[in-house]
Amino acid sequence: MIQIVVLGSAAGGGFPQWNSNAPGCRRARAHDPAALPRTQASLAISADGRNWFLLNASPDLRAQINATPELHPNGTLRSSPIQGVLLTGGEVDTITGLLTLRERQPLGLYATRPTLDLLDANPIFEVLNREVVTRNTLTLNHPIPLPLTDGQTSGLTATAFAVPGKAPLYAENAANPTAQGEDGETIGLDITDGTHHLLYIPGCAIMTDALIARAHQADALFFDATLWHDAEMIEAGLGQKTGRRMGHMSVSGPGGVLDTFKTHRTPRKILIHINNSNPILLADSPESAQVEAAGWQVAEDGLRLTL
Amino acid sequence: MIQIVVLGSAAGGGFPQWNSNAPGCRRARAHDPAALPRTQASLAISADGRNWFLLNASPDLRAQINATPELHPNGTLRSSPIQGVLLTGGEVDTITGLLTLRERQPLGLYATRPTLDLLDANPIFEVLNREVVTRNTLTLNHPIPLPLTDGQTSGLTATAFAVPGKAPLYAENAANPTAQGEDGETIGLDITDGTHHLLYIPGCAIMTDALIARAHQADALFFDATLWHDAEMIEAGLGQKTGRRMGHMSVSGPGGVLDTFKTHRTPRKILIHINNSNPILLADSPESAQVEAAGWQVAEDGLRLTL
Repeated sequence: MIQIVVLGSAAGGGFPQWNSNAPGCRRARAHDPAALPRTQASLAISADGRNWFLLNASPDLRAQINATPELHPNGTLRSSPIQGVLLTGGEVDTITGLLTLRERQPLGLYATRPTLDLLDANPIFEVLNREVVTRNTLTLNHPIPLPLTDGQTSGLTATAFAVPGKAPLYAENAANPTAQGEDGETIGLDITDGTHHLLYIPGCAIMTDALIARAHQADALFFDATLWHDAEMIEAGLGQKTGRRMGHMSVSGPGGVLDTFKTHRTPRKILIHINNSNPILLADSPESAQVEAAGWQVAEDGLRLTL
Repeated sequence: MIQIVVLGSAAGGGFPQWNSNAPGCRRARAHDPAALPRTQASLAISADGRNWFLLNASPDLRAQINATPELHPNGTLRSSPIQGVLLTGGEVDTITGLLTLRERQPLGLYATRPTLDLLDANPIFEVLNREVVTRNTLTLNHPIPLPLTDGQTSGLTATAFAVPGKAPLYAENAANPTAQGEDGETIGLDITDGTHHLLYIPGCAIMTDALIARAHQADALFFDATLWHDAEMIEAGLGQKTGRRMGHMSVSGPGGVLDTFKTHRTPRKILIHINNSNPILLADSPESAQVEAAGWQVAEDGLRLTL
């Protein structure tokens, strides 16, 4: 069994975003039921319903924990059901929540070498005391069991796999900012209990045959839905970057997420990491209807499923 | 006029704290009306009710903005009433919220040299693009006007002053971790509109005559209330550090906050930066009654006052 709680479903900045006065964000602030607010993307997963691992630590993590009874302490005076955190990259919206997990609480931290290097290059993350928060290197395509902090087995195994992406904005190589490699700066995660497979891919710049093949084996696929179409931010007057420049492929259009997976029989296909400009955040939009017709679900904070 | 909104009133970790199963935190999670949840300490201030400055940027800033209509965008598609941020130190609970203020939004950032150096030493803060987020050095005892991002005057002037404190935990000098200097690592802020004075002192290790004298001139004094008494964390089984070791004096006892200011006629005396172990977070505690009898108010998130 794999239990999943969607802690957050929005892309960086959340919905609404602090400095966006666009119509969608205005609707979210006005408590429009068709424009549900969303915190930044993260999942909590568990094999036993008692011990949990986080997939990414978003800047909203403290509020996400408060909103999720499964993650409240239920043991000693200082304790937490959170046993570890797995990171898919080093962006602000995937690592900032680590700063909430301070106070010398034992945890396992799992990331690829480039992401661990980014953390090491920022002394502020030393608040996660290395004596109790172990740093564990994820190697691409190498399954590792996820132990509980007491050394017992959690029943879950994680495999990191390459996803085309780019370095975080704050660590971009000025000479080649749009380099999109598969060197572990951005990864996807394949989580299994030995029977079921959860795929978590919150950021993907370009589809690859390997990703398409892997998705065929998944019981649940959470996939990057940052932008509906590539020039969306520019056309809305919200920014100067295409999705491609930001390291995210589009949901719609030829070669987009819906098109790519249209023949996949994956039981649960869920769009996540949704930017505040993406019309699928509005439940009454034609794009939301199109997503549903294609067999996809739009992630919402608090969504729970069990594989 | 100085308008003040308390964005958050708790010390680092907030109330409840993610990994605390102590009685107070349990009551907060159970929605006990006498144990109101609190986010991490920060104020928003304004001279005109339209343009705002933040005193510290807590890890809870995104939620705090969402909860505060005064801070919602009301201009162009990308805009914010937030004109700048002033920092009293470089602790995780004072600077993490800066990471929420990304997206190339113009801002003025104000801090002493040691705190700016800490930010510079952490590349993740480069998400605050230096072309639009100006770094401004606060010099002790040197008043500076706070301009709006368009260069107009805000009507507010800020003065940083020395407060005994210590370096942030993640930047402690291993050889001398308890060094408590007055070198600008921890400061207080004196905000004036030319008529009224707001003093913001969310962290103070030891009282000084200079602080006592300055408080005599204040119309509102927000003061460090991390711990009720120095050994509180140890006695409750929540940690091994005294308040003094953490750089915070106590609220109670001889030489404590209440005792020190007992003859001050400051119109508003408000306790802030309250640790989850402090019984004044519980409205039905004898300590809360004692604080009230001494003429102090316990800060709550959303508290508004005008000087």
